[in-house]
Parts: sequence; C-alpha cells; structure tokens
Amino acid sequence: MATVPTLEKLSSNKTFEGELIKYKFKSVALGDLDTQFNLYLPPNASQKKVPVLIYLAGLTCTEDNGAQKGNFLKTASAEGIALLFPDTSPRGAGAPNETDSWDFGVGAGFYLNATKPEYSRNYNMLTHVTTELPQVIEAAGLPLDWSRQSIFGHSMGGHGALTMYLASKTKQFRSASAFAPIANPSNCPWGEKAFNGYLQGGIEEGKQRYDATELITKHTDPVHVLIDYGTGDNFYKQGQLLPENFLKASRNAGYDEVQVRVRSHEGYDHSYYFISTFASDHIHFHANFLKA
Amino acid sequence: MATVPTLEKLSSNKTFEGELIKYKFKSVALGDLDTQFNLYLPPNASQKKVPVLIYLAGLTCTEDNGAQKGNFLKTASAEGIALLFPDTSPRGAGAPNETDSWDFGVGAGFYLNATKPEYSRNYNMLTHVTTELPQVIEAAGLPLDWSRQSIFGHSMGGHGALTMYLASKTKQFRSASAFAPIANPSNCPWGEKAFNGYLQGGIEEGKQRYDATELITKHTDPVHVLIDYGTGDNFYKQGQLLPENFLKASRNAGYDEVQVRVRSHEGYDHSYYFISTFASDHIHFHANFLKA
Repeated sequence: MATVPTLEKLSSNKTFEGELIKYKFKSVALGDLDTQFNLYLPPNASQKKVPVLIYLAGLTCTEDNGAQKGNFLKTASAEGIALLFPDTSPRGAGAPNETDSWDFGVGAGFYLNATKPEYSRNYNMLTHVTTELPQVIEAAGLPLDWSRQSIFGHSMGGHGALTMYLASKTKQFRSASAFAPIANPSNCPWGEKAFNGYLQGGIEEGKQRYDATELITKHTDPVHVLIDYGTGDNFYKQGQLLPENFLKASRNAGYDEVQVRVRSHEGYDHSYYFISTFASDHIHFHANFLKA
Repeated sequence: MATVPTLEKLSSNKTFEGELIKYKFKSVALGDLDTQFNLYLPPNASQKKVPVLIYLAGLTCTEDNGAQKGNFLKTASAEGIALLFPDTSPRGAGAPNETDSWDFGVGAGFYLNATKPEYSRNYNMLTHVTTELPQVIEAAGLPLDWSRQSIFGHSMGGHGALTMYLASKTKQFRSASAFAPIANPSNCPWGEKAFNGYLQGGIEEGKQRYDATELITKHTDPVHVLIDYGTGDNFYKQGQLLPENFLKASRNAGYDEVQVRVRSHEGYDHSYYFISTFASDHIHFHANFLKA
C-alpha cells in the first residue's frame, strides 16, 4: 500500500463525556474521492485504547444518521466502546445512473466491491469499511484497539454488517447485529437491483458473496448474532428484509437462539424511532464480546 | 372562539412502547396557516390522561429536531409523560423579510406575539403554544392532563420556555428548564433583532414582556427552574445567551439554588449532542413536579 491518507478533522462535539469527531480523507478504496466519517470516542479513550463498534447506515443515509438519531452514544460512553460511522457510498464518482434513484448508487453502495467496470473504481464499500478505515484511523494514532471489533447496522447496513461478519476469513469481527436488515438480498427487489447493477455476475455473484442467508447456510464456526425487526415495518411487509429466511437458514445450519437471536417487535416500523428504542440492547450485546 | 380546528394525522411511529404522532392543522393564532407538531404519547397514555411537557426548539428548527435528536423519549416513556413539540414559527405567511435571514422570520418566531402590523397576523407563537395547541389537542380527545403542564426548550426555545413560565398569570406551567437559553434577549443581538423586528415598542417592549432576566427580577412566587449550558458553546462565548445575567438576577430576587439551578458544563457546545447528554436530567426534573 502507498502512503496512508491523512485525516482532516471537520468538527468535534463533546457528548456524554466523550467526543464525537467528524473526519474527511481522500479514499483510495473509493477511487480517490473525498469521504467522511464520524467517530465517537468514549471518555475512557483518553486513558487507553478502546474497542470499536462499526455502525453501517441504510439507504439514503450518511455518516450522520446513526450518530444523531441512533441513541447509541450514551450506552457506548458507559460501556467504554468507540463507535465508527462510515458513509453509505462514494460521492461524486459520476458513475452511470448513480443519482437516478434512491436505492442504487449514491447513498446506496450496498457494502460490496463492485465488479462491473463502470462501478469498480469507486463502489468498494466492503474494502472501505473493513480495510481502509481501520488502516487510516490506526495511522492517525487514534486510541482504538482494532483487535476488538464488532459491527452492526440498519436495513442495507444490517445486510452489510451480517455479510461482513460472516464472510470474513480473518474473523475480523467478534459479533454482528442488525436492525431490520436486508437479510436475503438475492431474493428481494433491493438486493436484485444492487447485485445486477454492481456485479458482473449479477444475482448469482451476489448470492455467493453478499447474502447473509446464503452465508450462514455454509457457515460452520460459532457466531454471535442479534437481529431486531418490527412487524409494522412496511419494507418487511413488502418482502425486502426477509429476516425469517435468515432465521430458518440459521436453525437449519445448527445455530441455536444463543448464537443467532432474531426478535420480532409488535408494531415497530423501519425508522430511527424503532432503532433508538433497541439501541442500548445492541450496544450491551456487543459489549459482552468486545470486553470479554 | 369559533369552531376548533381539527387535527390531521400525518404519521405515527411506535417508539419506546409509546407513539410519536405528527399532526397538521390550520392555525388561527398563526393567521390561518397550516402548522405541524409532534406529540409523544407514553405507553401509559392508553390507560389514563398523562402530564404534558412542551419542548420549544431553537432557531432554524422545526417540530422534528427535538423528537429525533433530543434523546427525550426513553425517559418520557419511563416517567409516563407526554412530550409536545411545536414548530418554531408560522410558515408561508409572506411577511416582510421573513426568509432573508436564519435568525428572523421563518424558523425564528421567538415565541412572542408580534405587535407590528406586518407581523401581527401570523407571528403569534406565544398564543399558539400556550393557548391554541392545548385547546386543539384537548378538543381532539387526546389523553393529556392539561392541569399538569411544564415547559422546556433550547436556545430561542429556552428563552420561550423561561418567559412563558415566568410571565404566565395563571401559573400554567409547574416548572421550566432550558438548554443554552437566550436568557437576557434585550441585551444580545438575536433578541434585539427579534424585538425591533416584531414589536412596535422595540427592545423596550421586549424587555418588559419577553426577557427572562427582567421577568425573574420582578417575580415573587416560588419557581422551579433548571438551566444547563456548555462552556464550549460559541453563542455563549459571543454573548448571545447570557445565563450569568439570569443567574445573578435570580439570586438578587431571592431565589436560591433549589429554586433556580444554573449548571455550567465544561467543553459542551450548542448542539443536540449537548442536549442529548443532559436530556434525561431535564425529564426527571420536570417529573418531580408533573407527578407531584
């Protein structure tokens, strides 16, 4: 790897005795475009390196949604866990059709590495999240212990969290959780559009590499997974999420409810009002493994 | 009063076992313009009428900022208190200069009743918040106990909360609190601009009716006031907030720290990251009086 890009601090806010910092840097993984992320450092990060929990946001979101509306910071402060909030796609790539719809392209990178030539220079959120951000942040000397990472997310970001967790050859993450994830994307319209759009091999390539339900079917190692969704979620009702497919595949693969827990919540929808309600549960869940 | 306007429900989200509902209605106080508000009903509102805590947002905000970013809902749910989030001004009045700057006009109603003829038809946020919203919501049959009301707010909304509390002849509110309030508006640029803009009597009229520091000086009844601000708040440093003037006037008027508590927080700024940190404290503070 060439020289690691340096971080530019855009803003800093004290919150829950810790610090929420927004950074910018020129991302190699995203084709030399500027990208931004938020990082929450809990108060104990002033004394020692702290574990890292990565939050992946959903379609149309940026690095701000989870930080501002997720209700994660209070519990992260109390648990002494850093939170990393990446963006959801490259911005300004100028790739074909990238701004034509809200569920493809800008704001909709789907946490994969594109293989179609017109997207493969910029649309590499998988590498950006799992490799580049840790390298760049480590090089900046920030007090994070990258040997203790977990990952969670919402909707498209829940898909990202589950697939990055299950597909990692290096067991990069200790645990994964998701709010209303796109849990079986090769069987839903959002996933089909993304896979056909970004991948040369289309849905079949997506099914092999980026589908949590397919990945858990082939998985054999122990896992720590928590999923929450609401029965009032219109995208759930439309069949975009399919958490029941992931649950069934998990049980068929031999994972019990200690290893894969899927919770259904009566009447909750797809919004951050749902996420914020169960936010503390997710932070505490990851703390079990990050602080073990 | 003529027929009470009816509420149109625009959306509803289940959150913390309760319900956040967005309503619209045609406001008489705001000159027959449509206005919106959010109402959080805690879970126990399904069994009985619950107390009401009104949150007034700051410059440039809408009814959404406090609901989405304030971190108020979890504690309100646990305490069994409803939260009412009004907008910050009329919208669409077409009054002079109302969209020329972010600190006057749209998004900046200053929670007063305008007396200049060009604003007095529409800019009546005092009446809207203290009289019209309770009437309209009561007429809709929503389960709120208006004999138990308190009020709080941020920045311009902190000014609104303190002045509505202190100026009420009917002791409408049991307690008031504020995050980084504009506490002495007749002595700061924001307040001077608002008073000169909306009021025929200019700063002198504002000083008499809408300045918390002036009002506490003349006040004699017992009060319950909590104020938080951060030393890293740029508007505080610029002299827009002046909480020290309010504190000094309170002590001179004989109010001790049980009745008027002003807390300074090292390094915190003016953002919702600051508000969210101390949000629970404020809900618990009001619960003491709302549930007494």
